[in-house]
This record gives sequence, structure tokens and C-alpha cells, in this order.
Amino acid sequence: MASFCVLDEFEVHKNDDFLRIAEELKPELHEREIAPVSIVTLEQDGNQDPALVSEEAPDLLKDRLFKKDDSVILDFGTHYVGYLTLDLASAGSHQDAPAYVYLRFAERLDELAVNTAEYNGWISKGWLQEEYIHVDVLPAKLELPRRYAFRYLEIRVLDVSLKFSLMIKNVSARAVSAVKEEDVQLLETEDEMLRKIDEVSIRTLKNCMQLVFEDGPKRDRRMWLGDLRLQARANYRTFRNVSLVKRCLYLFGGLTFNEGKIPACIFLEPEIEPDDTYLFDYALLYGSALLDYYRATGDQKTLEDLYPIAIRQIEIGLTYLNEDGIIPDRSGEFWCFVDWGEGLNTQAASLAILIYSMRYGIRLAECMNDEETIHWLQKKLEELKREAVEHFWDEKQRLFVSGKDRQVSWATQVWMILAKVFDQEQNRELILRTIEVNPEFTMVSPYMYHHYIDALIRSGEKERALEEMKNYWGGMIRDGADTFWELYNPYNKYESPYGSVAINSFCHAWSCTPTYFLRKFYIPENK
Amino acid sequence: MASFCVLDEFEVHKNDDFLRIAEELKPELHEREIAPVSIVTLEQDGNQDPALVSEEAPDLLKDRLFKKDDSVILDFGTHYVGYLTLDLASAGSHQDAPAYVYLRFAERLDELAVNTAEYNGWISKGWLQEEYIHVDVLPAKLELPRRYAFRYLEIRVLDVSLKFSLMIKNVSARAVSAVKEEDVQLLETEDEMLRKIDEVSIRTLKNCMQLVFEDGPKRDRRMWLGDLRLQARANYRTFRNVSLVKRCLYLFGGLTFNEGKIPACIFLEPEIEPDDTYLFDYALLYGSALLDYYRATGDQKTLEDLYPIAIRQIEIGLTYLNEDGIIPDRSGEFWCFVDWGEGLNTQAASLAILIYSMRYGIRLAECMNDEETIHWLQKKLEELKREAVEHFWDEKQRLFVSGKDRQVSWATQVWMILAKVFDQEQNRELILRTIEVNPEFTMVSPYMYHHYIDALIRSGEKERALEEMKNYWGGMIRDGADTFWELYNPYNKYESPYGSVAINSFCHAWSCTPTYFLRKFYIPENK
Repeated sequence: MASFCVLDEFEVHKNDDFLRIAEELKPELHEREIAPVSIVTLEQDGNQDPALVSEEAPDLLKDRLFKKDDSVILDFGTHYVGYLTLDLASAGSHQDAPAYVYLRFAERLDELAVNTAEYNGWISKGWLQEEYIHVDVLPAKLELPRRYAFRYLEIRVLDVSLKFSLMIKNVSARAVSAVKEEDVQLLETEDEMLRKIDEVSIRTLKNCMQLVFEDGPKRDRRMWLGDLRLQARANYRTFRNVSLVKRCLYLFGGLTFNEGKIPACIFLEPEIEPDDTYLFDYALLYGSALLDYYRATGDQKTLEDLYPIAIRQIEIGLTYLNEDGIIPDRSGEFWCFVDWGEGLNTQAASLAILIYSMRYGIRLAECMNDEETIHWLQKKLEELKREAVEHFWDEKQRLFVSGKDRQVSWATQVWMILAKVFDQEQNRELILRTIEVNPEFTMVSPYMYHHYIDALIRSGEKERALEEMKNYWGGMIRDGADTFWELYNPYNKYESPYGSVAINSFCHAWSCTPTYFLRKFYIPENK
Repeated sequence: MASFCVLDEFEVHKNDDFLRIAEELKPELHEREIAPVSIVTLEQDGNQDPALVSEEAPDLLKDRLFKKDDSVILDFGTHYVGYLTLDLASAGSHQDAPAYVYLRFAERLDELAVNTAEYNGWISKGWLQEEYIHVDVLPAKLELPRRYAFRYLEIRVLDVSLKFSLMIKNVSARAVSAVKEEDVQLLETEDEMLRKIDEVSIRTLKNCMQLVFEDGPKRDRRMWLGDLRLQARANYRTFRNVSLVKRCLYLFGGLTFNEGKIPACIFLEPEIEPDDTYLFDYALLYGSALLDYYRATGDQKTLEDLYPIAIRQIEIGLTYLNEDGIIPDRSGEFWCFVDWGEGLNTQAASLAILIYSMRYGIRLAECMNDEETIHWLQKKLEELKREAVEHFWDEKQRLFVSGKDRQVSWATQVWMILAKVFDQEQNRELILRTIEVNPEFTMVSPYMYHHYIDALIRSGEKERALEEMKNYWGGMIRDGADTFWELYNPYNKYESPYGSVAINSFCHAWSCTPTYFLRKFYIPENK
């Protein structure tokens, strides 16, 4: 199912002061020269799992002669985001035809097994990181202008001529990020898997930290509000680049539309603009992101500037309540994200997220000493909690249901727990009951898993949360992750909401939060 | 059959003085802004002949919305060589994915019917004029850095996204040539076909006149000696850009190799270098090109500089004679070009071309008052003429044969006539006999047809020569030529020496000579 939003009426209200503050905080990117660490050879038998069968030293590359259809796969050792330069030359007679070269960048080895010509998903195949390049004059230093997210680079010679061969004398890249990995200390733990999970989380975060917090450096390469909130949490415990968070909060605050809604995502080019996408849950979670920022920094000025915008999202959220005091079911639309997963009903979760956002609204109002708002929100909060139980609690199943078909999903339970509709002991019972029942509508994205881990911890199931992190994020590591992925369904390795796993993003911001959990709740002495 | 030459021992002797003279004569290219004249729609039913079914005004382009798989074909009205600029924009929501665009340039409509992915000829598919381009940020002015030869441009949107469409706000190109078409007066004749043949010849020549006389601006985009000789002849009767001819003669003269051989072709980039290809006939014809130049200019200095090189080619040519006094048969190699055409035996023609070159050598020696060379060449010429008749004349067939299988071809007869092995009346009988017999091994390239027309005229068959020109070059015009083609076999429209007609060059220097014949022999009052 194609999931996207186009707003017919979309009137942006730019706050030039806010955008100026954001612009002043635009980071200088750190650059680092990188090079392949090995030449790898794959065995592909037509399925989607190519096996690495041999490795050679990268120095051997410069002496190889490439004729038509010859190819090589270079391994840069781990995942990077950056710009590629190839030093190409010819051997044999004088170059007498353009060298026609195909390049393919892959975050994960599996991507190289997919024939891009056969991709037919609903999001643009323009995201597949491939280039067809004619080199008219050799030798040539080919500096590719586009940015790629990759660990692997396949170079395939589509054609040269019978008289000359192509030579690849040098391959290098300029990796970029707003932060430097070495600025974060390694996690002090004996547990190898936890160290690995932490390290991969940090690399994921680093590679998504560019001119803003991007969701994924391969795709979509822009800032989504839901991702930002989680990235910022991981960032406070690691890089502590608070000015990048501030910049991003001001960007969202400076680009509201229509009645004051915050857009779900923002584009930087050709100029800074919001997407005409409203996601009910993302907009509501802005207040949570703002409170996190204030707690991490104590930056009163930013709180004062952006507080009205956060509260406005709650006001707008409340306008969607119907006469029954709940949010109508809009699961058929791309309106309240919650999680990927075909057929997930989001009605109950949307009410839970509204309640959750009101809890954060109250804390923000407390920081602002805004008594009126505190009272209003507290009163409303109690009402909504009652409605949530009345409409969605199934006493027989001892689980929350959602939608007219009374769907039971993990997502609904998790968000009801985070909304604190029940007290902690009831929440603990609920999460254990959920684990016991294991509802058919499972969680698909690390974004949803983050909230599940959070729900476990808030329900007093801290050890179980750790186990689940090791299972889920550890599962990606066992499957070869250098950075954590946009999607990981342990029960369906080839799950993609887009029609092909080749277009999934394998370095995705919303999956970087284990480092936040580990450093906040488990091994807090780490910076 | 792949036809190419790689010389194992190849030692270039650069003459820096000559190369400096050539460099000083490097032309400034004239530029002209061009734009599409219509949007065309084709009907393709899977064969190689797409039919043009409708035309629209190019202004309609800028309002069209392009989604995935949408395409358009633009017609620039006639053939040009130049650089393309596209003004691209987006419509709908903000661009949320790279626009992935495929461009295909075609000299002839038929090329667009060929699936380039299926091309599997022996010369590089890099010559197919296609590009795959990602446009990350719209609007964008896309200035393509490569040069193309084209009348038609197909733009196909490989993908955008569900949220935005691509718009093509403007398409323009910068056409380049060393000369300006308007500098040549139209042919003064009532004969519409002759006017058209002359006009297309001149456009062909113009589009091949760049920093040197190129063979074809699509492919191979470099200077071949055989082509240069014919281009120069057409140029003296039209653009009269004698300095470009001089530059090219000095380039060949300045880049000899081994025992003083002239290379068959020259590359300009990354620096001026000869190809390691020796073509026996091309090298010998250098003297003919030099004499033409001297007659057109009276430039004694150039004659004196380059005369020794021309004579040296004859000396080298004579070293190939075997003990029978003829050139051994090397038809299996790419060693003496004569013509494309599978299976053509070139043994007899190679001797004829050697004799022909000696005739020109004698005239050059006369201009130089070099009595010794005159006597030596005259003596040798008579010997070779005798050997030619003795070894290759078949009295029973009254035709020349070639090779051990005694192959009868058009090419052999034509070159024996141009070599003047017989007197004019015998030559006339021979060419008429050839026409009557119509040997199986026919002529394929306009290069060979040029020599056939020349042979007819030299044999006193001027009217027949005109008819043949109208048949052959007129045939291309009836088949839609805007510029004359590299290959035209009236009996096999899809003939290609390369494995696919898609890679043939449709603006090819060696086919531009009708304007030379028309203006020299038929309507000489034209400049």
C-alpha cells in the first residue's frame, strides 16, 4: 500500500526569526578520507542472499584490467555517508571509445543481489544508488557530485573497446557527518553484544547527523519529526550536539501551516520548506522532543519560543475528538504513523499518543509556570483516559482493541502503557499479557520497538527490556548490520513497506536508540 | 567481424615543429543556440521503422506533467552537434525523491526504436548516446557536459514520486562547428534533388568540422586520414576553410611512427596522439590529400614540409611487394580498408591504391621539381601496372579479380580504374562491364561510392555518375537523411559492420562529397 499524504490546502506560515536562528546553527560538516579495505567476491545463486566467498587486498585493484562486463565489489569496511572519487586510467592502445561504467552503492551486501531494472515498488527507484557514467577521456579523476550511503561499491564496466581496458587506479571517498565517532567513549561493559549494539547505534546516529537529523542518508535524506525526537534522545547520551537539536526544533517551529500544525517532515533544498504531510502522532510528539531538549540543556529561551507551538499541537489534536470523545479511525490514510505494517489499525494508538502528548504538555507547562494550561490539560487528560478505557479496553481479553473490528496489536498496548492510562502495576500486567498473547499484529519498525522497550522499562520490566533489545537490535547485528535498519521484522527478513527490500534504508535514524536506553538506564556512567 | 588493428611495436616520432603549427591553427568553434521545433509522437510496432504519427508545437512541452514512465520526443528540425541544457522543475508537492531521467539522443528516428540494453555489437555500446541522470534538487538547470550528435531527443522519466511530477520548462542546445552553414551559397540549379543532395552534403561536412575534421560527430569523433582527404575536397568547394585542412595535414605529418608510417587516425585528448592503427591505403592517400591542398592554396611552405612524408608512404608501400611484384593478400586483417562489406577481398585494390598513390606522388614531385623521384616513380609505376594486369586481369570475364579465390568485386574495378592501369577508353569499357555484370561483392560505404563516382567521371561517364549520385545519396534523402550516413547499402537498409544499425554514424564525413562533385564537375559557378 502506498502511504503518503498530499494536503490540498496547504498554507505555510514561515517564522523568519525562528528560521534565522536555525540557519545560524547550521553545522559545518566534518570530513574524513576513507578508502576500501578489501575487494570482495560474492557467490550469488539467484536468491537474495549473496555469500561472500573471498577477500583480497585493495591494493590489487590498481593492476587489474577491466574489459566489457568485468566488475569488482569494494568493501569500505563499514557504513559511511559521503562522496566518491575514482581515479581511472586506460591500458592497451589509446582509448578509442567512451568507457561506459555502472556504479552501485550498497549499504548491505544483499542489495547487490537485486536487479534494479526489476524494481517496481511505489517509492521512486531514483533512491536506488546507481549511476551510469560515460568517461570520454582517460585518464580521468571522476568526482561524483552526489552523496551516497554505503559500505559496498560495485563497479561494472558496461563497455570499453577491444583496443583498451579500463583501470581503476584509486578509489577514495570523503565521509561526512556533523559529528565525529571518536568523540563518544565506548560503552564500559563486559557484554560484547551490548558493546556492539551501542557502537552500531552510534554509527547509525552519526551517519544520520548531517545538516539536520536526517531519517536515513540513503533515503529519504530529510528530517522527519518522529525520527528527530528519537535521534535527539540518543544524541544527548552520546555526541551531545545540542545545537543541532535546537536548529531542528526551530526549523519545525518556524514552518507551521494552516491552523498552526507542524509538518511531519522538512526539506532543506532548494530552500527550506515543509512537506505537505501532517502526521497526527508526529506533530503531537513535538512537545516531548522539546521537553527532552529543555531537560538536556536548561535553555529557557528556546523553551519560551517553542512552547506555544507544542501546546498548539495538543489543541489541534483535541479538535479531532468526535462526539464519543475519541479519535475517529483514519487507519486507511497516512495520517497517524504509529508503525509500518500492512493492516495495522491505529485508532486506539492515536488516542493514546494524544494522551501521552498531554502528559508532556503538562510538564512543559510546569516549566513555564503556566498554571492555566496545566489545569486545562490535567482535566482533559483524565477525561481522555476514561474514554480510552471505555472504548478500547477489552476486559475479557485483558487487552486494548482498536477499530470497529476490535483489532488487537502490540502497538496499541505499547502506546496505552506509555500514555499511562493505567498505573504502573496494571501496565506491567498489560505488557506481560501482551507478550503472552503475542498478538498477530506485530511490530515492524525499530521506531515502534523503541516505544516497546520504553514501555517495558516504564512498567518496571527493565531486564526484559534489555533482553528484547538484545534480541531485536542484536538480531540485526547477527544479520550483519553495520548500522541499524529502517525495517526489521525478525519473522520476515524481506519485509518492505515499499515493494522491495532493495529500497529500504539500512542506516535509519529511528533505530539508533539502544545507545540511549543503555546509557540512560543500564550503564549510566558512560558519557 | 571485429575490424581493428593493434600494433605490438609502436614507436611514435613526434615532430614538435609540425605539431606547433597544427596547434596554432586550432579553430575557435562557432556556436549557435538551437531549440526543438516540434514534439513528435511515434508509432512503434516492434520493427525497426517507427512511424511519426503526430507533431505538436514545442511550446506545449512546458505545461506537461511527467510521471513515472512518461516520455517525450523532441525534434530539433535537422541534425546538429552540440551541448544540451534542460530547465527542469517540479509540480505538485515538494520534490521528495530524486527525479530519475533517461535521455536518448538520435541522429535518425529509427535509432529510437532500438533497445540499447540489447545492443551486443563489437564496438563499444558507450557510443550509444544515452544518459541516466538523477536530479536531486528541482528546479534545476541541467547542463550536460558531453557533446552529442542529434536531431531527436527522447526524454523518459524513469521515476519521480507519487507526490510530484517533473516539468520540462525549456530545452535548448548550443550547436558547434568550425564553420557556419550560411557561409556557403546554395547550389544554383533547378533540380530539387541535386539542391537537396548538395545541402545535406554541406550539413554533413559542417557537423564533422570541429577541432579537426572528425569522421563522425556521434562516432568515432576523431580524425581518420581517409575521411580527411574526402572532407577536404568538399571543403575546398564550399567553406574553403583551408587552415583546418592545413592543421590536419600537419597533425598527421607530425605523428608518424616506426619507419615513418602515418597513422590511420589521430586522437586529440587527453593530448594529441596517433592511434596504433596502420591502414595501407589511408597512409598512401596522404599524398593525394596534400596535392589537393597545394592546388587549392598554392601553399609552397606546407608542400615542402610535408612532401617527404607523402613520398615516404609510397616507399613504405613498395616494401610490401612480394617476389611476384604484388601486395600479398591481407584481407583477413584490418590492414587495407577499401570498404566495409563482409568477405571483401582487398588484395587487388591494395595494389591499385599503391599505383594511384604513385600517380599523385609524381605530381607532387613535379611541384617540387624533384626529378629523381619523378623518374623513380614513373619507372616503378609502369612495372606495377604490368603486374596488376598480369596477376589480376581476367581476360575471359573482362574484369579484375582479387585473391586466390579470384573474387570479382566492384571495389577492385573502381580502384583499377582510378589507378589508370588502363587508358580512359578501356576504363570506360571496364566500368560499363562492371555495371552490366553487377558483381556480388557490392559497395557498402559512401566512401567507396565516392571512388565509384570518381571512376565514372574519369572514364567519361559523367552523366551516369550524376544518375548514380542521385540514386545513392538521393536514396538516403528519400529515407529521411538530414546528413549523409556512414553506411548505406541500398540492398540492405539495416547493414552495419558493427552488429547493430543503432551504433552506425548517421552524419559521417566520408559521405559528404556529392557537393564536391556537383560544384567541381556539374555546376562549377557555385562557390
